[in-house]
Amino acid sequence: MKITCATKDLTEALQHLLRAVPNNPQTPVLAGIYMKAEGSTLELQATNLALGIIVKIGVNTEIPGEVVITGKYLQEIVRKLPGDMVTLTRENDESVVHINSDGSSFNLLAMNSEDFPKVKPPETFATFRIKAAVLKDAIRRTAYACANDETRPIFTGCYFEINGSSFNLIATNTHRLAIVKQHLYDDAGELKFIIPGNALRDLTRMVDSTDPGNIVKVDCGVKYVAFTFDNVYWTSRLIDGQFPPYERVVPRESTTFAQVNVAEFLATVDRVSLISKETEYNTIRFQFSEQDGLHISSNSPNVGKAEERINAKVEGPDVDISFNVLYISDVLKTLDSEECRIALTKSLAPADIREIGNDNFIYVVTPVRTN
Amino acid sequence: MKITCATKDLTEALQHLLRAVPNNPQTPVLAGIYMKAEGSTLELQATNLALGIIVKIGVNTEIPGEVVITGKYLQEIVRKLPGDMVTLTRENDESVVHINSDGSSFNLLAMNSEDFPKVKPPETFATFRIKAAVLKDAIRRTAYACANDETRPIFTGCYFEINGSSFNLIATNTHRLAIVKQHLYDDAGELKFIIPGNALRDLTRMVDSTDPGNIVKVDCGVKYVAFTFDNVYWTSRLIDGQFPPYERVVPRESTTFAQVNVAEFLATVDRVSLISKETEYNTIRFQFSEQDGLHISSNSPNVGKAEERINAKVEGPDVDISFNVLYISDVLKTLDSEECRIALTKSLAPADIREIGNDNFIYVVTPVRTN
Repeated sequence: MKITCATKDLTEALQHLLRAVPNNPQTPVLAGIYMKAEGSTLELQATNLALGIIVKIGVNTEIPGEVVITGKYLQEIVRKLPGDMVTLTRENDESVVHINSDGSSFNLLAMNSEDFPKVKPPETFATFRIKAAVLKDAIRRTAYACANDETRPIFTGCYFEINGSSFNLIATNTHRLAIVKQHLYDDAGELKFIIPGNALRDLTRMVDSTDPGNIVKVDCGVKYVAFTFDNVYWTSRLIDGQFPPYERVVPRESTTFAQVNVAEFLATVDRVSLISKETEYNTIRFQFSEQDGLHISSNSPNVGKAEERINAKVEGPDVDISFNVLYISDVLKTLDSEECRIALTKSLAPADIREIGNDNFIYVVTPVRTN
Repeated sequence: MKITCATKDLTEALQHLLRAVPNNPQTPVLAGIYMKAEGSTLELQATNLALGIIVKIGVNTEIPGEVVITGKYLQEIVRKLPGDMVTLTRENDESVVHINSDGSSFNLLAMNSEDFPKVKPPETFATFRIKAAVLKDAIRRTAYACANDETRPIFTGCYFEINGSSFNLIATNTHRLAIVKQHLYDDAGELKFIIPGNALRDLTRMVDSTDPGNIVKVDCGVKYVAFTFDNVYWTSRLIDGQFPPYERVVPRESTTFAQVNVAEFLATVDRVSLISKETEYNTIRFQFSEQDGLHISSNSPNVGKAEERINAKVEGPDVDISFNVLYISDVLKTLDSEECRIALTKSLAPADIREIGNDNFIYVVTPVRTN
């Protein structure tokens, strides 16, 4: 194999691919990047078996061929090469790949390309398209709400619930729930699947949405799903199982409504959290009242106390309620509106937080029981 | 105690003081910041017993008094306060300090100020002054060369060797040696002392040298030294012992001299180190020759090989020598000149690296023995 390409193109491709290279690979070859040169294209692959990525870049192929090199070294080296162009060479009978760029010369040991588990398209039973910006925004507003621990795998994923050209994306760790209602670029019929939240967060870092016309193609299989965009093909295993009914968690009969400035709310919660983080459940107390607005406080017997009052338009009976501060600050960071609306019922009932004038995003949070 | 001051002044003071607050204090009170309000001054102190810092800021004192508060909480809170001004209050009989700023209110548990080991000026037997810029530069060029492990404490320190208005600052870990020759602002007689290198590195982050006229006052005691600058008083224990004769380590009879561009040298060493870091002693091989310049390479049996040639004006016999890459890149990062000069004798003799035209900085590095 012998190819020459722009150092920048190879650097960008490797940056994407490294996301699928496991830190502690089950077998040594999984630490590698598989490369195959043919015509004017170099195809690069990486996989941790759960996740697979293929990136294609334009190259000048002198001798076609394939090779596997340890991803970590390859990426570090290519990133630091002095020249604009780089040449990768592997003689047929050699066990090393030569990397040359502007007087700099590296040899890296090659692995057997036959051992590499190639990333293959899933057997697809449905295909649809979605705007890149819509996909990224939906993931940004939900994936953080997933559970981190693997004891109930289903809650570590984001649930795609598709009906025609509408879809809901849902994530919950059972203490909080985030729902986005959005539209696909075309009609996909009825589809339901769960993708690991961590993988989706990684995906958003790869998808470019600066051009509002950018479209992502999604291919659904039984066990895998694949996203295709720009020069990237990204595939993830699905989480098996039935997502529980989530709509019933959204409060239907709230009686107290508060309207608060998001930036002020977040800054205050952030300050008060300096005390709450020393409490057992990172608990902050919120007292809503028509007369006094919103009083936010926290009390840690070992450290001290924080309290602050902020302006809030409150309608309805007073509510005195406590939350894990992360479940409040996490959602506030994702809101795009200047003001948000909090709907409450009573101290031990879930609250509902939304942007003013946008019912396509719903966040529900369960309070902490305090003495 | 009741004082009001600018939030910004208190934030800056606490940022300095936190450098002396230990992460794992021997006694709880050492986690605290001691504060004493009197007249228009608030004096703040922190100490880990080896290191002590006093900062004074201007305040409006309504009720004089003293208090100790946990430094970590105080700093985090003050940094995030919403108002330009902050009021600290401690009622006589209370065990809490109230922190109020623009509607935000914190109570922090106070500690007993009598338990706090006050930072005291050392019994001084000599005093001199030094330009802030000279002090910072001398530390920047030497302190990184200290030993990190405490098995031989003397090498964890920087050695001040003062003679009249001249001084040398020296650091070594026995594998490399950095020497700066500079001048004091006044005449100090003959003085020798060793200050922990870590503490000095911290000190440079506090000393402001943007005004070239800034002067630091140094008070020397038998066991402690104190630096005074701006509104800060900084004192450190000295390292006890006799610094070994270091001048004899500087090569006297080098036979090969190379002149290299510092930036190109550093970038190349940096690239080749991607391979060398996988070798046992992080070893890079340097081959100097009049005809071919400087050839830099590294070889790791498990990973691969790197090699690169850079321009170098070499005079004298060829030298083939290997170094721990960190001992080369560390010094190159501190050089201010465009080109540097490397003086060599043979493969197993120390090399001497200097800036072109500046003999006030000398760096000596011992090679690695390779097979």
